[in-house]
Amino acid sequence: MKPEFLGGSPDRWCIIEDPEQARLILRSSSSKVFEALLARERTLSDLKAELGMSLENLHYHIGKLLDHDLIEVKRTIPGPGRPLKVYSTLYQAYDIPFDLTPYEGAYEMILHQQEQVARRIARNYAAIMDEVGFRSRRIYFDEETGQVSSHGAPDPRAPQAELPESLGHDFTLDLKLSQQQATELRQELQDLMEKYRRMTLEGRPYLLSCVMCADVSGT
Amino acid sequence: MKPEFLGGSPDRWCIIEDPEQARLILRSSSSKVFEALLARERTLSDLKAELGMSLENLHYHIGKLLDHDLIEVKRTIPGPGRPLKVYSTLYQAYDIPFDLTPYEGAYEMILHQQEQVARRIARNYAAIMDEVGFRSRRIYFDEETGQVSSHGAPDPRAPQAELPESLGHDFTLDLKLSQQQATELRQELQDLMEKYRRMTLEGRPYLLSCVMCADVSGT
Repeated sequence: MKPEFLGGSPDRWCIIEDPEQARLILRSSSSKVFEALLARERTLSDLKAELGMSLENLHYHIGKLLDHDLIEVKRTIPGPGRPLKVYSTLYQAYDIPFDLTPYEGAYEMILHQQEQVARRIARNYAAIMDEVGFRSRRIYFDEETGQVSSHGAPDPRAPQAELPESLGHDFTLDLKLSQQQATELRQELQDLMEKYRRMTLEGRPYLLSCVMCADVSGT
Repeated sequence: MKPEFLGGSPDRWCIIEDPEQARLILRSSSSKVFEALLARERTLSDLKAELGMSLENLHYHIGKLLDHDLIEVKRTIPGPGRPLKVYSTLYQAYDIPFDLTPYEGAYEMILHQQEQVARRIARNYAAIMDEVGFRSRRIYFDEETGQVSSHGAPDPRAPQAELPESLGHDFTLDLKLSQQQATELRQELQDLMEKYRRMTLEGRPYLLSCVMCADVSGT
């Protein structure tokens, strides 16, 4: 069984059968460490720099992940003191059957993931509004787009402050799409991701999150 | 004071000063009705068709909104029976200072909004996975994009099922952008919205939600 997206050999692929492994991968304080090691080799100090965690915490998570056979010591790097251990996951991809996850079902699992993004977005927007001194919410019907819009705004009693356009933008749209249009939209999002994911080196940090999905709520 | 985005006259613009008005606009069961009437004229039966609410519920919300001077009867349409009342908001745009909102602050307000989107996304994805018989979560490091990815997957013990590419797609990226790049990204999202928001007539319903924002979580 060779998953096409891997283009790799079957031995780089693992089907989880142990609920504790499922929990460690998907919903534990060790999940970030697991993800950072997924198919990549990292030393303790690599992880410390990448994740901003303390060495104590990292030791704890690495111990857990080693104990449960999710990561291993791939090799060691000789140094002036003790040799440095290089950790990585055993496999490049993991498949976790829903019934092994710590969630009641697919809904709870996806909601947990989406809520994490929602909290990051809210924290960021709140900080941006604070930064630019926005103290008001503006809601209006935008004749140009035909949608009700709302966003942060300057104090309406002193409206000369400029909207910080480059700091944030978001929209949620209800669409009706043919299968071909949906495939095109998916491709556009993929292209957008491809274009911007390479921009990770300089400048101010940004979060970009896009979702398209068939909508069942109206049907 | 003329908000530039309106390009309209100041009398189409309202600054909310009453907390109960703020609550009705932003966080009450009447908010949907308010939004549907924002700068647009609708009869009861228009609203019934648009919102899928019962006439009893609509009567209740319209009464509330009338009582608090958020909507008014703009005109009546003569008919065979009683004349039809046409409702609309008094203004085209509303500004609600944070300190009048039913939220503790900007964070709570934005989180509430984002969580509503998160729940819709989770409901949709869960239904999609059910529809295509996905029972597993796949997590892997994608060498092509340099990101850890995860999505629903067919039962790994019977992996011939195809991924329903046109049903859903999502990604969350951490970027670093110059101000110019951020402005460009914002424009690309705006263009995407402009292009797809017109596709609302035929086909299957879809939800499209995109957010970009300066990220403070890492700083």
